[in-house]
Amino acid sequence: MWIRVLGSGAGGGFPQWNCNCANCQAVRGQTPGFSSRTQSSLAVSADGASWLLLNASPDLREQLSKTPQLVPAPGDSVRASPIKAVALTNGDVDHVAGLLTMREAQPFSVYAARRVIDALNANPIFSILQPQLVPRVELQLEHPLEISGAQIDLGLELLAFSVPGKIALYLENKDAPNFGTQAGDTLGFKITDSKSGAFFYYIPGCAQFNQSLIDRLQEAPLVFFDGTLFHENEMINQGLMGKTGSRMGHMNIDGPEGSMKAFEKLSVKRKIYIHLNNSNPVLNEFSREYAIVTAAGWEVAQDGLEIKL
Amino acid sequence: MWIRVLGSGAGGGFPQWNCNCANCQAVRGQTPGFSSRTQSSLAVSADGASWLLLNASPDLREQLSKTPQLVPAPGDSVRASPIKAVALTNGDVDHVAGLLTMREAQPFSVYAARRVIDALNANPIFSILQPQLVPRVELQLEHPLEISGAQIDLGLELLAFSVPGKIALYLENKDAPNFGTQAGDTLGFKITDSKSGAFFYYIPGCAQFNQSLIDRLQEAPLVFFDGTLFHENEMINQGLMGKTGSRMGHMNIDGPEGSMKAFEKLSVKRKIYIHLNNSNPVLNEFSREYAIVTAAGWEVAQDGLEIKL
Repeated sequence: MWIRVLGSGAGGGFPQWNCNCANCQAVRGQTPGFSSRTQSSLAVSADGASWLLLNASPDLREQLSKTPQLVPAPGDSVRASPIKAVALTNGDVDHVAGLLTMREAQPFSVYAARRVIDALNANPIFSILQPQLVPRVELQLEHPLEISGAQIDLGLELLAFSVPGKIALYLENKDAPNFGTQAGDTLGFKITDSKSGAFFYYIPGCAQFNQSLIDRLQEAPLVFFDGTLFHENEMINQGLMGKTGSRMGHMNIDGPEGSMKAFEKLSVKRKIYIHLNNSNPVLNEFSREYAIVTAAGWEVAQDGLEIKL
Repeated sequence: MWIRVLGSGAGGGFPQWNCNCANCQAVRGQTPGFSSRTQSSLAVSADGASWLLLNASPDLREQLSKTPQLVPAPGDSVRASPIKAVALTNGDVDHVAGLLTMREAQPFSVYAARRVIDALNANPIFSILQPQLVPRVELQLEHPLEISGAQIDLGLELLAFSVPGKIALYLENKDAPNFGTQAGDTLGFKITDSKSGAFFYYIPGCAQFNQSLIDRLQEAPLVFFDGTLFHENEMINQGLMGKTGSRMGHMNIDGPEGSMKAFEKLSVKRKIYIHLNNSNPVLNEFSREYAIVTAAGWEVAQDGLEIKL
């Protein structure tokens, strides 16, 4: 099974179009230690020929231009794509807007939770993907599913599970508890190579650790995990926005309630922070925080990272 | 007045994600004579400090990464953008999806025809742009308007006029005449520097030439015009799609009804083809068709082209 990080950044990417924080200035100035990052997406393949996208980022077209495996090969027909399916972990703009890039009458399948499909259905702009070519398939929680698309079986099994999170920003209901969030609005995925049995977890958004996650991730060979923020208050402290990490549906890396602490006893073989927000100090490879996470056995995802499992 | 071509390609860009036509193969293979092109957008500024976008392309984030004038400068506040307004010529995905990139609580104004505003309003995903920060201002046809945004007057006047065209694909009504298209669904813009009086025209989509266009464009100093297709049938002939240019709302460059012929007697000083589809033979600078359009006094837009008027 091949895994390729198409985008390791959070919503907005790095640098973000309107952000002038120290990190964004540094990456725009090509300061050593800083690498630009497009928005959140992975590509996975069992055979290297047919691919599943985990989330479709607004930067998809740019990501494909750097990923020869994901564009038509010279011998392919005049309209073709190795991408046969997309699975969405939630309805956030950084995870769904790339579907608009995947227009032009190409068949593939979209997998998402019921409420995310409902959100797509409520936006006529997504009807640019004709339903007869691009079916929207509902993911049932805790039910492993063989992924297929464009009449091709990808040889990948997807298990979707609910993690603590928050409904997409544009769907928030100010008057409802937790802005109207329901179980299933934020998913984690376990992806398994049906033939070899190799598997990994992809959890780009998670608001809180719980016993179910502890049981699930114990001794996993590979986990991509929500690395949006290092500190709960870093966006407030940098004057970027009046929201904490929890308010945005993301647990922080640091501290007693943070992901570093939560993973300490899980014996996960390889753990990688992904969905990194531009405010995160680990984006500076010479920072104290980068040294802390790497000393704790974490990697910090970069665009283009490839893993064979 | 400064004008910068952010994206010179049509919907899908060049190469297009799922296209394997001869042009797309050539540009992917970095064949001499072929340049990649992002999707359709211009940036305009009277003072070089505050900018108006003409259309917001899905590739906006990538376009900004190549345009230092359009991102925050080191001395700016922690959240900032030189982009103060966006004006939309229609509701097509290649012209509106970039609005989703412009999230993160940044104030600016969106100018569009009533029916395009209605289309945005009908898609809750665009509410990611909070209405109190990003007002949607209706363009009245044939009424010159001073453009402003984020409480800044841009020193630019915009005159919107209706041109023959087609409603956005995702809004088409199969049962209505011309798919439900109404006057105003496709606009052309005249942009004038309020101080100097310098002006130009931007018409990235136009299905047909008419007397009103002839009268309007006569002796214009600069026109960017719909260069989507060279031949009416080129997409059909290349096996890409069963649609003619007219069916897609674009007149062709060539032939007795084409734009080259239509401009012959207009004495336009500088004329530039823009919104170039990946099927267009003028994308090959060594082609017979490129030689024909340049011999007729046309330029073929490239991303990054800058003009001072």
